[in-house]
Amino acid sequence: MDVVEALKIVKKELTIERYEHTERVVDTARKLANNYNEDMDKAEIAAALHDYAKYRDPNELKRWILREKGLPKDLLHYHHELWHGPVGAYLLKVEHDVTTKSILDAITYHTTARANMTTLDKIIFLADYIEPGRNFPGLEEVRTAAWKDLDKGCYLALKNTIMFLMNKNQPIYPNTFQAYNDLNKRIRSLKNL
Amino acid sequence: MDVVEALKIVKKELTIERYEHTERVVDTARKLANNYNEDMDKAEIAAALHDYAKYRDPNELKRWILREKGLPKDLLHYHHELWHGPVGAYLLKVEHDVTTKSILDAITYHTTARANMTTLDKIIFLADYIEPGRNFPGLEEVRTAAWKDLDKGCYLALKNTIMFLMNKNQPIYPNTFQAYNDLNKRIRSLKNL
Repeated sequence: MDVVEALKIVKKELTIERYEHTERVVDTARKLANNYNEDMDKAEIAAALHDYAKYRDPNELKRWILREKGLPKDLLHYHHELWHGPVGAYLLKVEHDVTTKSILDAITYHTTARANMTTLDKIIFLADYIEPGRNFPGLEEVRTAAWKDLDKGCYLALKNTIMFLMNKNQPIYPNTFQAYNDLNKRIRSLKNL
Repeated sequence: MDVVEALKIVKKELTIERYEHTERVVDTARKLANNYNEDMDKAEIAAALHDYAKYRDPNELKRWILREKGLPKDLLHYHHELWHGPVGAYLLKVEHDVTTKSILDAITYHTTARANMTTLDKIIFLADYIEPGRNFPGLEEVRTAAWKDLDKGCYLALKNTIMFLMNKNQPIYPNTFQAYNDLNKRIRSLKNL
């Protein structure tokens, strides 16, 4: 599969606005991959596919989570916005034969993040966060960091997200909080906080 | 052991300022226990003893954490301010024969909190946070909630603490974040957020 084919697959699944967002994520992911010596083809394909299940009905997503052993059940105790990453990776495997683990992982964790993220995980998570169509408080600081230090970019994005959710009295998915602690430790050990 | 004996024990361990703080925590804990139908003697004793290990040298605390099976090793990856609760409970058992599990638990978790806190855990955690000598941003909201809804008081205190630590780029101990999610869920299920 190449990025053209990947984009063709998701075009049928997304609204036009979400598809245009996806194109910008592909573009940003390619540039980040280039910047951090990651495989640019992989980054483009993962970026193209990252929102594959975004518009599936939450009830369908829920059914997959309940049915599939590999999908963590605790997702159901958190906002359904967190479901499309893991279920999307699962559906891409069964519906489109996507088998590259690193790509499926990056899709799985693009919303929640996780501890010990791979470079590809970080690129997709961050490309989705900073693509040029985004605009929300705290974003400029993340954008600036993203091109200088991939860990610091992800860390600031996670911190921003957790504080935003807590201000809205939302629960925080454990992977998200573990990613925050993990990156905090990595960055502190380099004394660049 | 009664509260007079408990206060006598900690007086030798604490600075005068910390001892006076302890007296205010005892007073606040007694009132909270009365308000929420908890055993007032237990609340007073746990409050009196909560900072027992506060002024032990961090190196001594570290040695106990490394040596004692029951003490969680992951504490060592977090700020040493989190160590005196669990080590204090342990030392009270071996040095002063305190054996009441509910009291030792409340002391253990008075700084970090935990998921599924008991009423006594919540009273000690909150009394330490709101005692009249305290003064920091966000405290008045916690104080007001504390007397109306114990869960909500703890929730707001935890939220305040986590946001404060994240603003200082500190890691968050897993128990603290789990307590946040747990109380968030309890409060949301009552729709009083």
